[in-house]
Amino acid sequence: MNRTQRDRGALRPIQIEEGVQKYAASSLLWSQGDTKVLVAVSIEEGVPPFLKGSGKGWLTAEYALLPASTQVRCKREAAVGKQTGRTVEIQRLIGRALRQALDLDIIGENTVKIDCDVIQADGGTRTAAITAASLALALAADKMAKAGLWPENALKQQIAAISVGIVAGEIRLDLEYEEDSAAEVDMNVVMTDKGSYVEVQGTGEQGDFDRKQLLEMLDLADDGIRELFQLCAKFREERA
Amino acid sequence: MNRTQRDRGALRPIQIEEGVQKYAASSLLWSQGDTKVLVAVSIEEGVPPFLKGSGKGWLTAEYALLPASTQVRCKREAAVGKQTGRTVEIQRLIGRALRQALDLDIIGENTVKIDCDVIQADGGTRTAAITAASLALALAADKMAKAGLWPENALKQQIAAISVGIVAGEIRLDLEYEEDSAAEVDMNVVMTDKGSYVEVQGTGEQGDFDRKQLLEMLDLADDGIRELFQLCAKFREERA
Amino acid sequence: MNRTQRDRGALRPIQIEEGVQKYAASSLLWSQGDTKVLVAVSIEEGVPPFLKGSGKGWLTAEYALLPASTQVRCKREAAVGKQTGRTVEIQRLIGRALRQALDLDIIGENTVKIDCDVIQADGGTRTAAITAASLALALAADKMAKAGLWPENALKQQIAAISVGIVAGEIRLDLEYEEDSAAEVDMNVVMTDKGSYVEVQGTGEQGDFDRKQLLEMLDLADDGIRELFQLCAKFREERA
Amino acid sequence: MNRTQRDRGALRPIQIEEGVQKYAASSLLWSQGDTKVLVAVSIEEGVPPFLKGSGKGWLTAEYALLPASTQVRCKREAAVGKQTGRTVEIQRLIGRALRQALDLDIIGENTVKIDCDVIQADGGTRTAAITAASLALALAADKMAKAGLWPENALKQQIAAISVGIVAGEIRLDLEYEEDSAAEVDMNVVMTDKGSYVEVQGTGEQGDFDRKQLLEMLDLADDGIRELFQLCAKFREERA
Amino acid sequence: MNRTQRDRGALRPIQIEEGVQKYAASSLLWSQGDTKVLVAVSIEEGVPPFLKGSGKGWLTAEYALLPASTQVRCKREAAVGKQTGRTVEIQRLIGRALRQALDLDIIGENTVKIDCDVIQADGGTRTAAITAASLALALAADKMAKAGLWPENALKQQIAAISVGIVAGEIRLDLEYEEDSAAEVDMNVVMTDKGSYVEVQGTGEQGDFDRKQLLEMLDLADDGIRELFQLCAKFREERA
Amino acid sequence: MNRTQRDRGALRPIQIEEGVQKYAASSLLWSQGDTKVLVAVSIEEGVPPFLKGSGKGWLTAEYALLPASTQVRCKREAAVGKQTGRTVEIQRLIGRALRQALDLDIIGENTVKIDCDVIQADGGTRTAAITAASLALALAADKMAKAGLWPENALKQQIAAISVGIVAGEIRLDLEYEEDSAAEVDMNVVMTDKGSYVEVQGTGEQGDFDRKQLLEMLDLADDGIRELFQLCAKFREERA
Repeated sequence: MNRTQRDRGALRPIQIEEGVQKYAASSLLWSQGDTKVLVAVSIEEGVPPFLKGSGKGWLTAEYALLPASTQVRCKREAAVGKQTGRTVEIQRLIGRALRQALDLDIIGENTVKIDCDVIQADGGTRTAAITAASLALALAADKMAKAGLWPENALKQQIAAISVGIVAGEIRLDLEYEEDSAAEVDMNVVMTDKGSYVEVQGTGEQGDFDRKQLLEMLDLADDGIRELFQLCAKFREERA
Repeated sequence: MNRTQRDRGALRPIQIEEGVQKYAASSLLWSQGDTKVLVAVSIEEGVPPFLKGSGKGWLTAEYALLPASTQVRCKREAAVGKQTGRTVEIQRLIGRALRQALDLDIIGENTVKIDCDVIQADGGTRTAAITAASLALALAADKMAKAGLWPENALKQQIAAISVGIVAGEIRLDLEYEEDSAAEVDMNVVMTDKGSYVEVQGTGEQGDFDRKQLLEMLDLADDGIRELFQLCAKFREERA
Repeated sequence: MNRTQRDRGALRPIQIEEGVQKYAASSLLWSQGDTKVLVAVSIEEGVPPFLKGSGKGWLTAEYALLPASTQVRCKREAAVGKQTGRTVEIQRLIGRALRQALDLDIIGENTVKIDCDVIQADGGTRTAAITAASLALALAADKMAKAGLWPENALKQQIAAISVGIVAGEIRLDLEYEEDSAAEVDMNVVMTDKGSYVEVQGTGEQGDFDRKQLLEMLDLADDGIRELFQLCAKFREERA
Repeated sequence: MNRTQRDRGALRPIQIEEGVQKYAASSLLWSQGDTKVLVAVSIEEGVPPFLKGSGKGWLTAEYALLPASTQVRCKREAAVGKQTGRTVEIQRLIGRALRQALDLDIIGENTVKIDCDVIQADGGTRTAAITAASLALALAADKMAKAGLWPENALKQQIAAISVGIVAGEIRLDLEYEEDSAAEVDMNVVMTDKGSYVEVQGTGEQGDFDRKQLLEMLDLADDGIRELFQLCAKFREERA
Repeated sequence: MNRTQRDRGALRPIQIEEGVQKYAASSLLWSQGDTKVLVAVSIEEGVPPFLKGSGKGWLTAEYALLPASTQVRCKREAAVGKQTGRTVEIQRLIGRALRQALDLDIIGENTVKIDCDVIQADGGTRTAAITAASLALALAADKMAKAGLWPENALKQQIAAISVGIVAGEIRLDLEYEEDSAAEVDMNVVMTDKGSYVEVQGTGEQGDFDRKQLLEMLDLADDGIRELFQLCAKFREERA
Repeated sequence: MNRTQRDRGALRPIQIEEGVQKYAASSLLWSQGDTKVLVAVSIEEGVPPFLKGSGKGWLTAEYALLPASTQVRCKREAAVGKQTGRTVEIQRLIGRALRQALDLDIIGENTVKIDCDVIQADGGTRTAAITAASLALALAADKMAKAGLWPENALKQQIAAISVGIVAGEIRLDLEYEEDSAAEVDMNVVMTDKGSYVEVQGTGEQGDFDRKQLLEMLDLADDGIRELFQLCAKFREERA
């Protein structure tokens, strides 16, 4: 399980293409190594029943693997008639994380829908989706504030996420699919740009991990996420 | 309903990007004006029950609009748990058309799966999907033959498709969404590269049409499709 | 693939039985050769969300094969929990065609539901359903106008449909199941009683077709549909 | 709740039309007053998993109301994607009752499928379906034995069923819809032609009933069912 | 098929544990021999559409086997995505029976939901559920009246139910699973505390039954149900 | 948000009742404060397709809230026809955790099914389910080894889990529902009896958390889980 030409603490190269879907409030094609996620932010009038009349908004996320995104083609969930357990788990995580980024009091009774469609899945799709979605959300919030459609910029803070794991006994950042599928331990870390945790999910897939390993994984994740924030901030500035 | 800077018989500009999905046998991002369709060809072992033991292969297609592909975000079918009637109708058309392109006797008991995911929907997604899928299928067949995985090139003939319609009384080729949604008559034409029809579907959405109009629409479609075949042939040659 | 005692341009004998379902606004059992379709028109208060408040009505159709209607019993869709792609495609076609027959401005915010249940399927069920439904709709519109429930007769025009195809190289009208399943080309034509086209769907099932064949098929269809309109007009007059 | 011109212990007039669905092993359109049920018997190879290798056959039934069969159009279950609780309950009753009619050891590992589609629902559809299905099954068993496809006549005994109830305090046989919907007590009785009970289902819809009323209802049902058996026997003889 | 130490007309020993689910309006764990059913009564605001504005309430029941309640683990219906026909039939029976116990005019536009979850299934789960639910409903009605939430005690009458059957030619009360699965005839009887029938469902599973046997089964059921009412009355008094 | 009479680092009182479901390989009713989970272990022949022929076994878990288990009755998923996202997420977690407890090589091609049905939900149902399931699995493994049905004791290690969170700024162990629903941060920790982590899932529900808080939460969880292991070991010994 060798990763050539990349340090165990290094992120994969990231490319960001904006505006792939012109009808969305904002959209990004996010590439992190060979993982490619298309993220779109849409804004719809109305909120779920439990928020009606509250004056507050809501945010949800949906996630899917395109059938040809995986090594072996995966079934189209719409044709099967059911989302897999993995999909449900991931889109709940994305929604939960992104709700930490947005001030739901500012946006009124509107719902922000975040679509994350994986074009190519080479590991770390859920964390890539979160980072990309947070950046897309920032761009949408900038636009809505500038257009006067939202009374002020509704972005509370930025969110970013990275995977980290133990592969062949070594702690590594930003696992590729080959590493991910062989990892003893797999951890997804979601943080705010203020440096605190929004979500920490460590799973012993083929083993377990002790406190020391946990802390080393968090150290690597902290560094990686700091780098992601710099990258996103730069992207946002350049286009402002 | 004006179309600026495009003749009523002109195709929208076409761009083709290959290899967007590395795990597929072949994949293309096909842009026709602002319509963008991601097409992937996958090859799976086995055939549906009615072909087991026949020694013949099969081909099916699946189609979806990404939620943010449309002017107003459309619901994710996987979340709803059901494909819409429109989706079902379109993917059956694509499958039927593409089965005319492939020699199912050559590929053995394997199934070719064609995924057509619409990234941006600005009219004519089903015809764009057919033309793109036919080109992708050709590339996959070239590759399979070259690799010796299929005994010979399984492509029988190329297929291409275009929409044509009557908008504000004028017959026009390759309708954009604004035109499409206001069209009196909408027709989809699928042809082989030998110049005969595989499928002709004319629908009076807001009216009906006479024999003369039908023939004029077919004339425009014939020309457009001829142009599409030249374009595809050129693309295939350049990369051969 | 011989059709005994019927000319290649001849319709199968047609029988019409009215009033089979007494609770419907109108109902017909339409037999065309051995194809039998039970058609019922129901009128329900209310319209789909996109028409609420518009003052306009709507029309939809539903289609099903009874399980024992086919040579080999087909599965009951209600038991499977899902309509097949073929069913969805056909009922969309029927609805689209019949909306051309009815003036939706006259009927107020009501929905006309057309149920087409195939008792016996010997080819041409979708076109038989359209012709039968158009006649049943005319009868219902007559009744509603006479009863003063609709302000005037809401029938804009009559619709009729027929299948035509190429079987063993020969162009034939009104295909039976044996012909249909062996046809090289299969075409469904829907027309108004003013002689223009509402829908033309030609499909090369096992081959393709050129312009000349297309025109010959349309000629045969035109004649067959003219005959259907005479038959329906006679039926409607006799009972007026 | 008056029933004109019919004694409280009288059956509604019954009409039987054979061969409505030519592809089925046997089919009947059974009219009992204004209740009309189309019943078809199909024979399929194979049995459910729990009988594989047993050498025994199986029988199941499916039931549906056509949408326009009821006073107010009912929803098409295939479109809803789910059978109603009422449908499930009825088809389980029909299947259970009819399994008493057939010798499952004789038919080998085949499954008899009984389709009961209600064309018009004016009360007593489930009992009409059972009686009609039993007669259709007898005709199919005769045919299979004569053709040598089943080693001997697989019909063990005939089955018939009738509804009986208490309406406005009066015990009545063979309730029409108007009576049925107002009945205090509703009872369905299924018997063999040897005079014993296969199923007795009495329900206090709007009240309860004592032992004396139960016995009076059974007396009426016994007489009605005896008459049904005479009628079915006569029909079967006439066509033998 | 011997039942040791229990007379053919004897009930199994019954144990009642109250308050197992603290959030419900009332809840009972009902043990009848080795059959254990957890019953809970919940009260929800609102009624189904057909009762809106009527001022009347409604009552429905839901039933499930826990997967590990049966000899061979049964599939979890929520995971399958569909309730079995047996479940649907049983919960309709429970709901129908319990609606006879409650005065729906008193409770206003509220819906009583009765959940019957079978912890261990050793025969007679549906009848145990009905008796237990009736007692739980009585406790809830007492509580609602005492708390002034319902204007008066909404319990019209008590309901109880028991199974009876013919096993190895012998008529027996309150069948255990071993008996039930081998029974020639199986009958469920539901009665009011005034001694009349609410529901009588006799089924010849492996045979049929004559009038004399029917009456003997009813005699046994009458006695058993009388005993159940005494037991429930005693339980209710002791805790009042 | 006061918790009376319980230290912020104290577990709620735990009660364990064995053998509630006699047909299961083992079953426990686990009460932790007012949270009650019924856990059953079933063993079925066969494995999922991806393990066929491997000689290895498999383990899966299913989870459900009984409708009346929650403060406001929740919908029965079987009736809705779909498990909620929360259910799917939880049962995947339980399955993943428990697969760490069992040596899948020892049990042959069999599948262990763990059913976790929540009788009463007062917070911490998923962690209670994991601890209870691990104990039940140990009991089942003891039994299978003793009976010689599994060649040796298949339990690799014990697993236990606990929730910990930040409520009103205070770090607390084993949150009750009132605390859970108001928690700023909610964390579930799953550990082996060797003291290492199997799963760590920390979520900032209404806020985020820093490294120091994370470590304090883990400290509390470590202590709580150690206590759970003592309790389970004692239970297992006493009954051995």
